[in-house]
Amino acid sequence: MRICIMGGCGHFHTALKPDIELAGVCLTGEETPGFSFLINRFGKVPVFPSYEEMLKECMPDLVVIDGLFGHHADMAVCALERGIHVYCEKPMAINEEQYKRLKNAYKASNAQIAAMLTSRYEPCFYTLYKRVRERTIGNIKLINAQKSYIFGERPQFYAHPEQYGNTFMWVGIHSVDLILWLTNSSIVDSHYFPSGKNSFGFEGLDESAVAILKLQNGVLATVTVDFLRDEDADTHGDDRIRVVGDKGILEVKDERLYLFKDGEEQELELSDAPDIFLDFIENLDDKGKRLADDEAAFLSTEAVVNITGV
Amino acid sequence: MRICIMGGCGHFHTALKPDIELAGVCLTGEETPGFSFLINRFGKVPVFPSYEEMLKECMPDLVVIDGLFGHHADMAVCALERGIHVYCEKPMAINEEQYKRLKNAYKASNAQIAAMLTSRYEPCFYTLYKRVRERTIGNIKLINAQKSYIFGERPQFYAHPEQYGNTFMWVGIHSVDLILWLTNSSIVDSHYFPSGKNSFGFEGLDESAVAILKLQNGVLATVTVDFLRDEDADTHGDDRIRVVGDKGILEVKDERLYLFKDGEEQELELSDAPDIFLDFIENLDDKGKRLADDEAAFLSTEAVVNITGV
Repeated sequence: MRICIMGGCGHFHTALKPDIELAGVCLTGEETPGFSFLINRFGKVPVFPSYEEMLKECMPDLVVIDGLFGHHADMAVCALERGIHVYCEKPMAINEEQYKRLKNAYKASNAQIAAMLTSRYEPCFYTLYKRVRERTIGNIKLINAQKSYIFGERPQFYAHPEQYGNTFMWVGIHSVDLILWLTNSSIVDSHYFPSGKNSFGFEGLDESAVAILKLQNGVLATVTVDFLRDEDADTHGDDRIRVVGDKGILEVKDERLYLFKDGEEQELELSDAPDIFLDFIENLDDKGKRLADDEAAFLSTEAVVNITGV
Repeated sequence: MRICIMGGCGHFHTALKPDIELAGVCLTGEETPGFSFLINRFGKVPVFPSYEEMLKECMPDLVVIDGLFGHHADMAVCALERGIHVYCEKPMAINEEQYKRLKNAYKASNAQIAAMLTSRYEPCFYTLYKRVRERTIGNIKLINAQKSYIFGERPQFYAHPEQYGNTFMWVGIHSVDLILWLTNSSIVDSHYFPSGKNSFGFEGLDESAVAILKLQNGVLATVTVDFLRDEDADTHGDDRIRVVGDKGILEVKDERLYLFKDGEEQELELSDAPDIFLDFIENLDDKGKRLADDEAAFLSTEAVVNITGV
């Protein structure tokens, strides 16, 4: 399979695999540290000044889209119009207009799309999902989700909402996606507060945001996201989720999964999760086999666009 | 000091002390299990059919108000009008009309009032407060609070919102009060979802509720409350709070206090907290010495009435 990479601001590296031919890259100028190093591991790769030119010239089977967050939709539309599969950083769009344009381009294309919903592919959340489906905790009633990141070094475009979107979209989409996935339901009402501060010297950046969600099946949820994690912490993120059912509670903390049921607390063994990129490209003939399919990519993006009301 | 007790649906027992003379009790018919046992420990106490009669006859120094939650305000007004100090179960009112009437009666009275804001007097939350005031974590930015209770055996009035109020008021007031106390700020905006289910066979009872708060000083907060804790769990409640500052994070879980700062995680030693009832009656001459004064009683009640929009 031949792929091209457009930008390197997020999780592009999840697509870098030994058997994948890297036909070209196109830089945004705001690549994450480590981009060149990772690309160089794949030998001398042609670098193109524009992604349109790159696609025309390389005609890859698939593009990895990871530019400024506000450019994802334009880049994806460009690929879908050429029938090229899209592996896109989340969120795939940062406003309703972009979302609709992308959805229409997808409907008109034969190409498939996946968003980098990486949380589904972490053993702790993957095993949580399996236990929920096995009805270990009965019916879900309430979910509390947390994403807490170190801010660290971030590119300048985080200062500009038209390029960055907002922190709830960028960080909270993982929690929102897990909530939609676990409940197999949809959001019927939501409320949201961004911190509204110019944070870390980045104008227009929210250092935190909170939301409550009400789902079609009656489940309530809280989501809290922040960039306020200790710079010296052991791990980049302190991601948690508490899933309360009528027959028990499942919780993820420190990448471990705990079950509280019948007066007992136990840590559960984690299953190996599929690789997110391989799950996409190995199931192009049957997207129903994927943990996160085209529909999940759109639903999670639509949800964070709606919640944050852009 | 001579006291009377009106009802026994909640935390009346926090006022039962060896040196306090119990002059009379008035029952609601929906006392918590253990009420008679506790009262009997204080010898033969006159039982009155109505609280108005009891107050007229006994003229106590202080009344403990712990009737059906929707009756707190009426009971407190009755005492305040006679110049009798009030130690009242929270929330002190379950709607705006009750709240205003109570506030007016308080203003017209020389008596003092305290709400049973018991969380402030737990060593874990008390020490948390002290560490916040010592600026251990700098400026607070974000708070996540959880109250999770076992439903267990509950009196029948929980089925009736006009007697019970709602679950966020009854349970969430502790979290809301801690947030107001820790931040020394006020709520400028909030959103709330109750589960809206008839739960555990109690019509009109919410088994859970969630809220987000925005404070005057920019702090954001989430509050989640539920009655979904495992019936066989070790403790009645699973109360947590995560207080994120710009210089560290303090967290309470399992009645323990943890500090995350400069890449280190440590459990902090807890200070002894004052007794809630003694703190009230020993500081009647200087209410500024109390952990939870008259103002806190009103602010926390007003906050949950406003948040739940009754």
